[in-house]
Amino acid sequence: MNISGIFPPVATPFDEREEIDLAAFTANVTRYMETRLAGVVVLGSNGEAPLLTEEEGVRLVAAARAVVPRGRVLVAGAGEESTRATIAGARRLAAAGADAVLVRTPGYFKTQLTQEVFIRHFTAVADASPVPVIIYNAAPFTGVNLLPPAVARLSEHPNIVGIKETSPDIAQVTEFVSVVRPPFQVVVGSLPTLYASLCVGAVGGIVAGANVVPGLCVELYELVRQKRFAEALALQRRLTPLARSVTSLYGPGGLKAAMDLAGYRGGKPRAPLPPASPQAVDVIRNQLAELA
Amino acid sequence: MNISGIFPPVATPFDEREEIDLAAFTANVTRYMETRLAGVVVLGSNGEAPLLTEEEGVRLVAAARAVVPRGRVLVAGAGEESTRATIAGARRLAAAGADAVLVRTPGYFKTQLTQEVFIRHFTAVADASPVPVIIYNAAPFTGVNLLPPAVARLSEHPNIVGIKETSPDIAQVTEFVSVVRPPFQVVVGSLPTLYASLCVGAVGGIVAGANVVPGLCVELYELVRQKRFAEALALQRRLTPLARSVTSLYGPGGLKAAMDLAGYRGGKPRAPLPPASPQAVDVIRNQLAELA
Amino acid sequence: MNISGIFPPVATPFDEREEIDLAAFTANVTRYMETRLAGVVVLGSNGEAPLLTEEEGVRLVAAARAVVPRGRVLVAGAGEESTRATIAGARRLAAAGADAVLVRTPGYFKTQLTQEVFIRHFTAVADASPVPVIIYNAAPFTGVNLLPPAVARLSEHPNIVGIKETSPDIAQVTEFVSVVRPPFQVVVGSLPTLYASLCVGAVGGIVAGANVVPGLCVELYELVRQKRFAEALALQRRLTPLARSVTSLYGPGGLKAAMDLAGYRGGKPRAPLPPASPQAVDVIRNQLAELA
Amino acid sequence: MNISGIFPPVATPFDEREEIDLAAFTANVTRYMETRLAGVVVLGSNGEAPLLTEEEGVRLVAAARAVVPRGRVLVAGAGEESTRATIAGARRLAAAGADAVLVRTPGYFKTQLTQEVFIRHFTAVADASPVPVIIYNAAPFTGVNLLPPAVARLSEHPNIVGIKETSPDIAQVTEFVSVVRPPFQVVVGSLPTLYASLCVGAVGGIVAGANVVPGLCVELYELVRQKRFAEALALQRRLTPLARSVTSLYGPGGLKAAMDLAGYRGGKPRAPLPPASPQAVDVIRNQLAELA
Repeated sequence: MNISGIFPPVATPFDEREEIDLAAFTANVTRYMETRLAGVVVLGSNGEAPLLTEEEGVRLVAAARAVVPRGRVLVAGAGEESTRATIAGARRLAAAGADAVLVRTPGYFKTQLTQEVFIRHFTAVADASPVPVIIYNAAPFTGVNLLPPAVARLSEHPNIVGIKETSPDIAQVTEFVSVVRPPFQVVVGSLPTLYASLCVGAVGGIVAGANVVPGLCVELYELVRQKRFAEALALQRRLTPLARSVTSLYGPGGLKAAMDLAGYRGGKPRAPLPPASPQAVDVIRNQLAELA
Repeated sequence: MNISGIFPPVATPFDEREEIDLAAFTANVTRYMETRLAGVVVLGSNGEAPLLTEEEGVRLVAAARAVVPRGRVLVAGAGEESTRATIAGARRLAAAGADAVLVRTPGYFKTQLTQEVFIRHFTAVADASPVPVIIYNAAPFTGVNLLPPAVARLSEHPNIVGIKETSPDIAQVTEFVSVVRPPFQVVVGSLPTLYASLCVGAVGGIVAGANVVPGLCVELYELVRQKRFAEALALQRRLTPLARSVTSLYGPGGLKAAMDLAGYRGGKPRAPLPPASPQAVDVIRNQLAELA
Repeated sequence: MNISGIFPPVATPFDEREEIDLAAFTANVTRYMETRLAGVVVLGSNGEAPLLTEEEGVRLVAAARAVVPRGRVLVAGAGEESTRATIAGARRLAAAGADAVLVRTPGYFKTQLTQEVFIRHFTAVADASPVPVIIYNAAPFTGVNLLPPAVARLSEHPNIVGIKETSPDIAQVTEFVSVVRPPFQVVVGSLPTLYASLCVGAVGGIVAGANVVPGLCVELYELVRQKRFAEALALQRRLTPLARSVTSLYGPGGLKAAMDLAGYRGGKPRAPLPPASPQAVDVIRNQLAELA
Repeated sequence: MNISGIFPPVATPFDEREEIDLAAFTANVTRYMETRLAGVVVLGSNGEAPLLTEEEGVRLVAAARAVVPRGRVLVAGAGEESTRATIAGARRLAAAGADAVLVRTPGYFKTQLTQEVFIRHFTAVADASPVPVIIYNAAPFTGVNLLPPAVARLSEHPNIVGIKETSPDIAQVTEFVSVVRPPFQVVVGSLPTLYASLCVGAVGGIVAGANVVPGLCVELYELVRQKRFAEALALQRRLTPLARSVTSLYGPGGLKAAMDLAGYRGGKPRAPLPPASPQAVDVIRNQLAELA
């Protein structure tokens, strides 16, 4: 299971009644498949997964499967607070067509979630999952952090193929790459850290900006592969302002506004997540113009 | 809707296969109803709600309803990340027998969850809920905080009857009591802060320790009502060590171990939450002995 | 050494060149001594101690000593990052007239400052200090927290007479009172938590608001002593908005603006601390009018 | 003023009475000058600057000046909480021989320290300093963060030549490099992030590990300059474990123990900072053996 390259954590478009707009979703994914993206991640944070039902998740994965060819990788987010619900999700989403599942660390009972607990959790999930597992370490969302020694241990499991790290702590990314057992793969979850992470040995990125400017994200990846470092760094610098807007700054509302401006189908996030304000839309429009 | 007094956020017992043990649950709640507890909260954090399915939630509420008489208050936890799922939960749990719903603030997309967003969310939920809403502010779990001005605004809604505050910040509890519109009620979610909170105008507590020593928790509440402050404070001091063990220190595993030791039916939490270690069980046993 | 009652952490007025204005300082302290304040704290956070030199500290303590009668308590802030500098400060300030020293926990090397390290530090300081030591736990400023077991140990030292707790965590204040060895005294460092803290056994407060409305702060304290709890709580609620303005919200600049409005001599803080904005001054003016 | 390359933030050796051991200090610096280190930083965090007096600072800078030739850069730490004290320190240390001063952001009154306040502070310091200023952003110690827009503004000041960033947030380092006005230089303050930071355009590092293995730190820097990236990354991975030990993990005590093991003169830190435990010394010894 090769997860190198660039994946968009695809947004989930809704209609006016906040129901999933499968046609819009399929249209976006279809267009993404016309680029050199390595695949897509459905049911990620940027897909508003915490605001979706189980049944909606299955529909989205099945719809993606219909347009993601077998040569690309269809990853589905499957993290839940309990081990058993995570396993059930992995089975359900694999049955719906996922090639791999992305499993977020639990995060609610922070004082109880020790490194040992994480190791047991991911091991049990990986033992039971019919498809490979990618660990998702998302401290900015969950408030808990999976440390290098635990990741080293988990990298020995034959059904755990990699980790997505969302924090911008490059020392941690560097250590992950250093301590894991090949062919375990490290990818990052944040476009502003993509270039640096590729330099230290990460093999790709699951980055929100790839919903908006997939071609440029792939270009950054390929420039590094071709060792054209100065060009890659210059492109990284150009991409960072937009990358901030569609994640930390304006959230899913900002991401969807950017998609609308870039010719994809975004729309509004599900309540209570706010849509981008008119001021935010102006900022994003200018950032896109700079990239054109 | 009077939510004054003491409520246990009831634990959810499981059998050996991690399935809900409804008989054990019903036995516990039945015994609680033989005390002067004001009611129970089902599907709270201490009930491991984030690790339960929707269907399990309905079964637990219905089972509680069967043994909670109409003169006591049956509260059900209903917070989800989306407004629509929260509303659906409120309807589902009200239909199952809940007298009120306890609605946690969303917390996943922290940068997007402004005070204005929270006001819109709780207003929409309260507009649609068939039963009264109690806000649940749980910064130690969620990483976001609802501030006094927003609570003041929300206290004007006729279907929002109160707030449960979990943080130990007594300045915030004092301000909540001060700025809300009567008859809006403030209750606390932490036994170590119960006495002080009652002193500043909170009317009760939803406290994990009431699963273990309900009589002592009620006694503390009643001593304050009778203005026997010195005795109340002395009791608070005696209760605090156990209270720490069954929440922040040992989590749901510690709570359930304490219940087993106190003659209730606890068992083990659902994975990945760890059971109490033998050392933790010893600590808790000694704390219970001190209280006997 | 009795530290019960209310102390202002006195502000440090500066002239236009940012030099200490001893006349203004002396005028303020003289007026404070006409009230029933228990004494004053010189060189506290609100006195901008981190922005003063050693020599300025000595001058301020000596000036205060000249107008603080022996029946009141003159406390001087003496916390430094090293044990030896803290001891030197305690000796220097005792020689200048301080009755006791308030010693902040070190906080710079956060990962190295374990509870054991704090115990050694305060023990060494207390062994060497010619005057009694009051521990100052100031997590909002320092980012480190002294826990109840360490405070219990330190309370056995004959030259450590109490602790000032600045965090609003009432569970911690309650535990401090519960675990320390009498006659060790717990006081709080935040006016919004004063009433609740007195209810759980704290014996007083070192609160910025006492620089502005000393009479009302003393009245709150005395109402609790007289068990007139409803009146005390009502007064607490009235005081809280101003209390927020002169600390967390507008900092030393806000405190000094409030002093000017209340007839004391405040002025501007030392750079880079900003003076209160015109909007902040308006807010404070209205809060003072509400209290008149 | 060129600050590219590797600088050790030199440790401050003490004798048995915790007095500065100038002979040991001079011996260390003399040996460092026999390597290709770009210079030294005296009075940094790793030099225990917060535990030193003004007079000690002057002696250390003067002693360093005596052995640091003019072709290398002697930087002195000069950050204080007040603008005026920082300016006084810059003048004092320049007079003692410093080529540049490293000025930490103030951090005590966190709520008052806005980006605008930081801009005013550093501008005033740079206007008055007789030698160039290097900004020191040290969020892990100070709890406050200087953001890219403020750094962009400050980079236009002719007497501010660069910034040392201590956080491992590579997105922020990348943005600093991207937004500043040349010839403003970005250096990092953490060895585990050195390779990645050099890749994104940082020009050097002020790293604790350079006190212990200066040759290897310089080699890492030079490998990147020679575009021998794979070798540089491999060396980074080898250096990281030791780098963790001498900073976040074991603090100044760990750094000094490592220096002793590596043949430099370390000794013990000033109280209350703890010396490395025997277990820590064993860990460090093994890490050094791996690097030999």
